[in-house]
Amino acid sequence: MSKDPTKQKIGIIGGGQLGKMMILEAKKMDFKIIILDPTKNCPAHSIADEHIVADFDDEEAIRELANKADVITYEFEHIGIEVLKELEDEGYKIYPTIKSLEIIQNKYQQKEVLAVNNIAVPDFISVSNIDEIKSAGEEFAYPMMLKSCTGGYDGKGNAIIKNQDEVVQAYESLGAGSLPLMIERFVPFIKEISILACRGIDGEIAVYPVAENDHQDSILIETRVPAEISDTLKEDAISLAHQVMEVFEGVGIFCIEMFVTEDERLLINEIAPRPHNSGHYTIEGSITSQFEQHIRAITGLPLGATALLRPIVMRNILGEGQQGEAIVEGMVEVAREDTLKVHVYGKEISKPKRKMGHFTVTSDNLVEAIKKAEEASKVIKIKGQC
Amino acid sequence: MSKDPTKQKIGIIGGGQLGKMMILEAKKMDFKIIILDPTKNCPAHSIADEHIVADFDDEEAIRELANKADVITYEFEHIGIEVLKELEDEGYKIYPTIKSLEIIQNKYQQKEVLAVNNIAVPDFISVSNIDEIKSAGEEFAYPMMLKSCTGGYDGKGNAIIKNQDEVVQAYESLGAGSLPLMIERFVPFIKEISILACRGIDGEIAVYPVAENDHQDSILIETRVPAEISDTLKEDAISLAHQVMEVFEGVGIFCIEMFVTEDERLLINEIAPRPHNSGHYTIEGSITSQFEQHIRAITGLPLGATALLRPIVMRNILGEGQQGEAIVEGMVEVAREDTLKVHVYGKEISKPKRKMGHFTVTSDNLVEAIKKAEEASKVIKIKGQC
Repeated sequence: MSKDPTKQKIGIIGGGQLGKMMILEAKKMDFKIIILDPTKNCPAHSIADEHIVADFDDEEAIRELANKADVITYEFEHIGIEVLKELEDEGYKIYPTIKSLEIIQNKYQQKEVLAVNNIAVPDFISVSNIDEIKSAGEEFAYPMMLKSCTGGYDGKGNAIIKNQDEVVQAYESLGAGSLPLMIERFVPFIKEISILACRGIDGEIAVYPVAENDHQDSILIETRVPAEISDTLKEDAISLAHQVMEVFEGVGIFCIEMFVTEDERLLINEIAPRPHNSGHYTIEGSITSQFEQHIRAITGLPLGATALLRPIVMRNILGEGQQGEAIVEGMVEVAREDTLKVHVYGKEISKPKRKMGHFTVTSDNLVEAIKKAEEASKVIKIKGQC
Repeated sequence: MSKDPTKQKIGIIGGGQLGKMMILEAKKMDFKIIILDPTKNCPAHSIADEHIVADFDDEEAIRELANKADVITYEFEHIGIEVLKELEDEGYKIYPTIKSLEIIQNKYQQKEVLAVNNIAVPDFISVSNIDEIKSAGEEFAYPMMLKSCTGGYDGKGNAIIKNQDEVVQAYESLGAGSLPLMIERFVPFIKEISILACRGIDGEIAVYPVAENDHQDSILIETRVPAEISDTLKEDAISLAHQVMEVFEGVGIFCIEMFVTEDERLLINEIAPRPHNSGHYTIEGSITSQFEQHIRAITGLPLGATALLRPIVMRNILGEGQQGEAIVEGMVEVAREDTLKVHVYGKEISKPKRKMGHFTVTSDNLVEAIKKAEEASKVIKIKGQC
């Protein structure tokens, strides 16, 4: 690290909304930023110092990024790791480490590492063909989840199998064995919660309060903080988050999604080695946003305070209507709610269910914030226009 | 205004730290930004969509900016207004309006408008030569302030005259009559306070809490919020801020600096028609930062909530040592204070006393925040390196 840490150039693989929000924080401290993203007018484009327009699997471009940057990070975990592994071995700084990324990328390995370390996860088993799925069905009973071990996000790569008759269809919908597969026992959860945790290069760990999430069609719709769960569960969740960060030796911000079961147990659902949609609330809700925290961690700065400033609700704005040039509707109307903050990601094209933006509402009273957010989500829309 | 307000392109005259901090807020909502600044690598350069590199008095460049932008604003008030007046007359949207800017630019006119509207200001009189300054000395008694009516900032353009023997020297230090001059009665104030106020295009007004300021050599050093003054004075100050915004019909964020006299009266010292150094605390301290509020006002969005989230102290980081490439020292050390946030403006060259950055500390306890900020200001330095 340079004596003046702000002189470090940060390379980000991905120039979507997560990259954009990282840059908005990094620029406060005057870090220089290079992004790599195939889309010229991606959300982060206009605020990056330099943009390497290249595919994520373009090894030459990734090497160029590594040579120009002092430290590399990434905004999504589904990237080819071969070249990154080589670069890490050659001494380039990449955070989170490729060692931790490699395990997390594969949901089976991720769960195995957690299970080996006595961290509770739903029961799971590797499967590679229809017969193995059917035997899993006998062991776990239906319904159960079929998941591709790699590459899934926002519910893609997951298929619920309600009975034995659905096995073949589910198997085919996930590539008919072209990707490694696993079965997870279905967890009849009563709540989905998530926790952000960050680990510095030196091992310092900072954990955020527990957030409570709602999904629709496997896409996050709403996050509420603080979560409405017992103090005991909160303590358990925070302790689990610490354990996870130790196990993976993760550097940077991680999001740990958990299920709360009917009998008040916590099971880890998934870990994301990056800023997470369910952590967007931290921009307005926390002393240190998840994006600032990530930048601090990967540049060797001490971590910031994670306390919640006020109860807060975050709601996603998903693309509606047809595919086309993104147009925001209802911005003026919702902004009349004077604690409501709209984030528009700047994706040129809106598609149905694409994450186009989000907004937060803060209040001294979470119930009030939830109500206001629900009303606003009926008014603000991002639609495609041809 | 376009149906989708985020489609507006904002033109900013000036790409310094105020422009930069405006853009960081505007980008959250995905506004497009064009700046005009003579310095290629000015603080706002890397996050603007487009940068017209031109002098502030380059009329052709300002016309280019106006033609490319949907709305124009500026980060400092000492700009030539002839072309802006023409543009305003031609129907271009410029906020704050050039009508309000023209009055505020001239400290004599500014005070006159305030006085006519029964808003208390220190006694003042226009002077144009040594004899008139001496007669003012007889009327107001010494010490008194000689000020150039136009062009001053950070104490430049002001000279204190302690007795009649200093009249000639003060007169000559302010250009010997080349600029319009005024004398102000010296106010033996016990505190300097400031208030941010914002007015929307439709006349909506939002006022922030009272901030308390310390200056050194006429340069702001520290701002503390909430101000330690009586509730009555706070109410008076807030009411004055409302009056000022009505009088000037200002659109956008204004900062109103006031003196608190020994007998607990408030006198308006100066008005800045722009985001102000004493309002930087709002980034971490307030629900809506002064920069976001300004962007909301000039783009026709409703104003945001101005409540303080936590007691907060802001301290400036002024250039130290020799002039040269700016290097930050002590960043890691001060960041160990986990509520401390450093803003590095990204000016390439550090000069003694140049505003190079600032930091804030928040705490539930203002006294604790003050102490921590004082300690940190001994550690974090921005210096020139050759």
